[in-house]
Amino acid sequence: MAKTADKYLCVDPWKIIEDGFHPQRSQVSESLFSLANEHQGVRGYFDEGYSGESLTGVYLNGIYEERFTEGMSYKGISNRLAFMVNTVDWLYTRIEVDEEILDLAKSKFSNFRRELDFRTGELQREFVWETASGKKIQLIFLRLLSMETKELACQQIRVTPLNFSGKVTLTMGIDFSIQHRMFAENFWDCPRTADRAILGVSKNIGHRLFVGMKIYSETEQISIEADKFVGVRLDVDTVEDQETVIGKCVALHTDRNPAQALDDAWERGMSQLQASPKKYEDVLKENQVYWGNFWAKSDIKIDGDADTQQGIRFCIFQMQQTYRGVIDGANIGAKGLTGEAYNGNAFWDTETYCLPFYLFSNPTAAKALIDYRYKTLPQAMERAKDLDCDGACYPVATIDGTESCTLWQHASLQFQPTTAVAYAVWHYANVTGDKAFLQLEGAELLIQICRFLASRGQWSPNGKFGYYAVMGPDEFQMMVNNNAYTNYMAKRTFEFALNVLDEMNLSTRDCSPAELDSWRRMSTEMIIPYDSKTKLYEQHTGFFDLPHVDVDAIPVEDFPLYHHWSYDRIYRNDMIKQPDVLMFMFLYNQSFSLEEKQANYDYYEPRCIHESSLSPSVHSILASELGRHQEAFDFFRFATRIDLDNYNRNTGEGIHTTSIAAAWMNIVYGFGGMRSDGNVLSFKPSIPSHWNGYSFQVTYQGSVLRLEVEQSRATIRVTDGEPVSVKFCGQLMNVNRDSVSIEM
Amino acid sequence: MAKTADKYLCVDPWKIIEDGFHPQRSQVSESLFSLANEHQGVRGYFDEGYSGESLTGVYLNGIYEERFTEGMSYKGISNRLAFMVNTVDWLYTRIEVDEEILDLAKSKFSNFRRELDFRTGELQREFVWETASGKKIQLIFLRLLSMETKELACQQIRVTPLNFSGKVTLTMGIDFSIQHRMFAENFWDCPRTADRAILGVSKNIGHRLFVGMKIYSETEQISIEADKFVGVRLDVDTVEDQETVIGKCVALHTDRNPAQALDDAWERGMSQLQASPKKYEDVLKENQVYWGNFWAKSDIKIDGDADTQQGIRFCIFQMQQTYRGVIDGANIGAKGLTGEAYNGNAFWDTETYCLPFYLFSNPTAAKALIDYRYKTLPQAMERAKDLDCDGACYPVATIDGTESCTLWQHASLQFQPTTAVAYAVWHYANVTGDKAFLQLEGAELLIQICRFLASRGQWSPNGKFGYYAVMGPDEFQMMVNNNAYTNYMAKRTFEFALNVLDEMNLSTRDCSPAELDSWRRMSTEMIIPYDSKTKLYEQHTGFFDLPHVDVDAIPVEDFPLYHHWSYDRIYRNDMIKQPDVLMFMFLYNQSFSLEEKQANYDYYEPRCIHESSLSPSVHSILASELGRHQEAFDFFRFATRIDLDNYNRNTGEGIHTTSIAAAWMNIVYGFGGMRSDGNVLSFKPSIPSHWNGYSFQVTYQGSVLRLEVEQSRATIRVTDGEPVSVKFCGQLMNVNRDSVSIEM
Repeated sequence: MAKTADKYLCVDPWKIIEDGFHPQRSQVSESLFSLANEHQGVRGYFDEGYSGESLTGVYLNGIYEERFTEGMSYKGISNRLAFMVNTVDWLYTRIEVDEEILDLAKSKFSNFRRELDFRTGELQREFVWETASGKKIQLIFLRLLSMETKELACQQIRVTPLNFSGKVTLTMGIDFSIQHRMFAENFWDCPRTADRAILGVSKNIGHRLFVGMKIYSETEQISIEADKFVGVRLDVDTVEDQETVIGKCVALHTDRNPAQALDDAWERGMSQLQASPKKYEDVLKENQVYWGNFWAKSDIKIDGDADTQQGIRFCIFQMQQTYRGVIDGANIGAKGLTGEAYNGNAFWDTETYCLPFYLFSNPTAAKALIDYRYKTLPQAMERAKDLDCDGACYPVATIDGTESCTLWQHASLQFQPTTAVAYAVWHYANVTGDKAFLQLEGAELLIQICRFLASRGQWSPNGKFGYYAVMGPDEFQMMVNNNAYTNYMAKRTFEFALNVLDEMNLSTRDCSPAELDSWRRMSTEMIIPYDSKTKLYEQHTGFFDLPHVDVDAIPVEDFPLYHHWSYDRIYRNDMIKQPDVLMFMFLYNQSFSLEEKQANYDYYEPRCIHESSLSPSVHSILASELGRHQEAFDFFRFATRIDLDNYNRNTGEGIHTTSIAAAWMNIVYGFGGMRSDGNVLSFKPSIPSHWNGYSFQVTYQGSVLRLEVEQSRATIRVTDGEPVSVKFCGQLMNVNRDSVSIEM
Repeated sequence: MAKTADKYLCVDPWKIIEDGFHPQRSQVSESLFSLANEHQGVRGYFDEGYSGESLTGVYLNGIYEERFTEGMSYKGISNRLAFMVNTVDWLYTRIEVDEEILDLAKSKFSNFRRELDFRTGELQREFVWETASGKKIQLIFLRLLSMETKELACQQIRVTPLNFSGKVTLTMGIDFSIQHRMFAENFWDCPRTADRAILGVSKNIGHRLFVGMKIYSETEQISIEADKFVGVRLDVDTVEDQETVIGKCVALHTDRNPAQALDDAWERGMSQLQASPKKYEDVLKENQVYWGNFWAKSDIKIDGDADTQQGIRFCIFQMQQTYRGVIDGANIGAKGLTGEAYNGNAFWDTETYCLPFYLFSNPTAAKALIDYRYKTLPQAMERAKDLDCDGACYPVATIDGTESCTLWQHASLQFQPTTAVAYAVWHYANVTGDKAFLQLEGAELLIQICRFLASRGQWSPNGKFGYYAVMGPDEFQMMVNNNAYTNYMAKRTFEFALNVLDEMNLSTRDCSPAELDSWRRMSTEMIIPYDSKTKLYEQHTGFFDLPHVDVDAIPVEDFPLYHHWSYDRIYRNDMIKQPDVLMFMFLYNQSFSLEEKQANYDYYEPRCIHESSLSPSVHSILASELGRHQEAFDFFRFATRIDLDNYNRNTGEGIHTTSIAAAWMNIVYGFGGMRSDGNVLSFKPSIPSHWNGYSFQVTYQGSVLRLEVEQSRATIRVTDGEPVSVKFCGQLMNVNRDSVSIEM
């Protein structure tokens, strides 16, 4: 991995700080300084407008549009792209002095500083503007999204003339005319406006989004209306060295229901606006309390590595901003709510990379993620039908539950999203013991998934069962037979489903004995390509016979390969993009011997080029387990700072939300050695050699477990709740509030 | 194969005849009654216009347009579609009596009859029109394309009022406003018009097409001009029971040069018009002579099977209409010049299905087909570069030599077009002994093709050479490794190239010893999946392990599978669309033992669903060789009448020109048992049990060989030219003008 850091932010344990403006990185900063509260996400763009490189992006979870693509139109190929649509610039501000309009791409300014504080979710930006005539004005912009009332958002602007007294004109408003960048198109109509309120209706889907505002200012407010815009003008009489504060509080209301009557949408938005306006300082206080509570349960502290400390807190903060289970039907897009790349769609990343963080910090949110799949079961069953199959096939990419991946070679061949849902059911049930969920939603999900797996699989001429013409998680082996991951996950899914149905005596209610029996045979006869001599799982039938590519010999300028290699060339050698065999060895970690893990790691790691940002973390966790601590740290190094240091050179498009979920796993599963795939939660910590220590908490069976690891010893205790049984450094123990330390 | 005939034409040995109009089959008839002369093709649409289902289509060989498709834009994926564009309705006629306009979709008429005569290429259509007021007019429409002067075309209209005397108004003209059906768009601008002449320039490519006309009539001609149209009005005073004849002669001139100055294009067209106008009868006479000479050398006569007799002559007639080697840079589109399906693109069909007909009837035309590939070598070398390869990669579909297949899974994975060019070089040289060609064009083609094959192939971990991520000719196995066809053809291509270069001492001029040596090793180490016990070639590595599908159990309504099965479902079983292993056993027939052919036929035939119209013929030829005569006839049955009886239900889109080329092969290679892949031409005839006899001629080494086969014996002799050595029923002999008969 030839990735290099582009580091420009100041290091701080609780903040990200840009000291002095970096215009070449303007869009990277916009992504990094994004605010979100699950309901909405706002890129860190400049309130006052900016004619340089910028993406004015405000995205709402579950508010999407659609587009139909030309191309292949065979059965089972989806030509409909659903995408999280850019909505409304509610921070809209223009500032004018002596007919000169402030624009940091053109204006003279100094003392630029921008900070985002993880303890409050407050974004602050300040600088001194010097006009052509030499007037100097200090400006401070603050913004906040309420974590208490998710529809509520605040802006504050502080203006201090430093060498004059006189008029400063501000225009502040709500602008629905912004473009969705990816398609250079605006997707909103505004059928109704009023003084300081406007209703947007998205063009094709018809999502209703009400935005109303209240401006706090002592200056007279002159209303302005324009196309898709409402606002006010303030001619502020400022006095030298005196700060004038202008505040704006907005309500962004939507019921995420395109069928809603427009009057209803308007009225409900208006009530929200009237009920909830709060002053900036009040929201700030509430947020302080919210984030304080959160960090008390979810902080990871690293002693002796300031970069990583900042990085891991950034990751955890972003995870919590993006998703925390407060909106019905929300999911986690690959870029969270910070950009348009991947169209805001959710992938299998949700179940495999994000779920563990919630499982061990907020099980309710974890359950809500699985509920999303349960609610979209009808769409998954429709999709299975499109593929000439039974049961439920979960989409590769989705916003509304339908398949939104228009490349058939992914959408028709990749089934890890489907097995990941079954895995999530199992993982959730295994960790929480939530039988009620298993009995209802869980069992139904499992039955429909098994039906799909039974109908998509095929019997080989010699009586074995497997999956043909598939792509596993590794997207560099396109259309293969008996991908070990797909087959193994299907086998485990059948086994789990049969157990659940059997245990709960649900079998006879929903499935015939013949159907259950067929699943049993499929599971037993599943082809798992494995060489018992070498202990190697073959990634798919024939993988070992593929031409070899020395991945270290590929010139750096060839990356990313998708842009530089002929498309077909990527798919005809033994190079892999991301873990596939190692992936199921991670997910069902305790089902494999250390020797097996070692053999497969040694074989597959050198063949992996990590072109997916999901790749290094899994390698790091396994390297830790194999005692290769430096290698583990090298893979981990990127994880926490992938966006802060723009390792993949595309953070400008949005942060790698689902990848940074793995940073948490890297600490907890990697160095902490936690394993959640057995009957009992276990820990086997290690520590990078240059750290003094680290600590983390996990919420488990209603209690909070705290682990502290130093170079010479590891300590565990319960900080909240009842004692719990865990395995700690190989010893099964009942952990209570008393610390247990073990020398390492 | 569950194909049924939709027979509605009268049987005649030298004509196709529609007796009474079949409006439900109007577009099928338009395809069948197409005229062509390689330069242009005219569908059998009604001169006078028709508001029912119709495609007014006039296509010129090598006159194309382009279109860029949305979709995947990775390296090596072509997004440019070149298509043979619909051009100009030069038969434009409207007929009016008492303000009633003739339209067979609405008018009352009787005695409809339409005939196309293979001995003249004349299309005649007649009927009696009865107007609303009861006036009856007999109308006869005739049309002809000159085989002597390819730019020349004639129309004749004969009008006879049967129960009145009075005015019949005809509007006749040249109409450039017709739409290309596939894209519902007109692709022509007309920058210059004059009285009775118009210049069309195609919108994107800029092809120049001049069309001028001369009208032969005693009535005054009133000029009409409209958008993209020139014409005349004739108010004809007709007399009861007297025939009035109106003639039109047009010149369609193009130099197929988009860079040509417009004035040049106009002047050259005008000279052509002024030099070549001929009366209808003169052209008819010339055509009679042309076709008489042609049939004398190329007729196939079948005694005792009138359907097949008509069918085979239709096929041969269409082949000769479509292509005969008179235009520089022409090729044979999948639908010839009869429709827009397959965009008028040429495929590997040219080399594998069409070439033999020309090789054995018109070797100059055969050479011109190979010259087309030689002239487009630069485009094939560009294409190889796009695929990160060296040398020349020939396009899957093309008009102008560039890749026009926008589906990467075909364009980037199928290499039979490339090996087919090498095969054609070999086949042509083997049959004609043309060393001069081999020395120049042949050697260069082979070198560039070998360079491609060397760079696209890969070495396996155990030191064998092969092709990974390919699709063979069988398009139901998409992305496989070591497709036996691809590998075998590549091996033979390397061997042939090395021999040619060695024999001609060309090696050192163009290739280094190291390069030649690498080809030698690749050829020697080529992976050819073969089981010596069963004598089966495995279609690709792993084919024998694929899930089995009983193709006979697939419901008829599932066909064509591309329309009814989920796209991916087609590609994950042991069903094949068309011959793959059997294909190379056909092409290099004498390199395999009868036992091998039998074993592979027995294995692959039951797995083949013949969804390609190219499929049955190869099976028929091999079945003949294996002595399975009824099976051979059953496969052949469709071949000659695939379009006449609309077996595939899509003849309306155009006739299956390249497939019907195989009808000729079915007689000559199949029943005639001819083999042209050895050192000497050989024949081993058989005869379907219900035929009395059949005969055919082949042109070979400058002589015409005639074979006559009856139930009990086969006779061979030379009818023109010097004696030639052939193998006849197993005996090597020198055949001269004396008949040699052998009892069968």
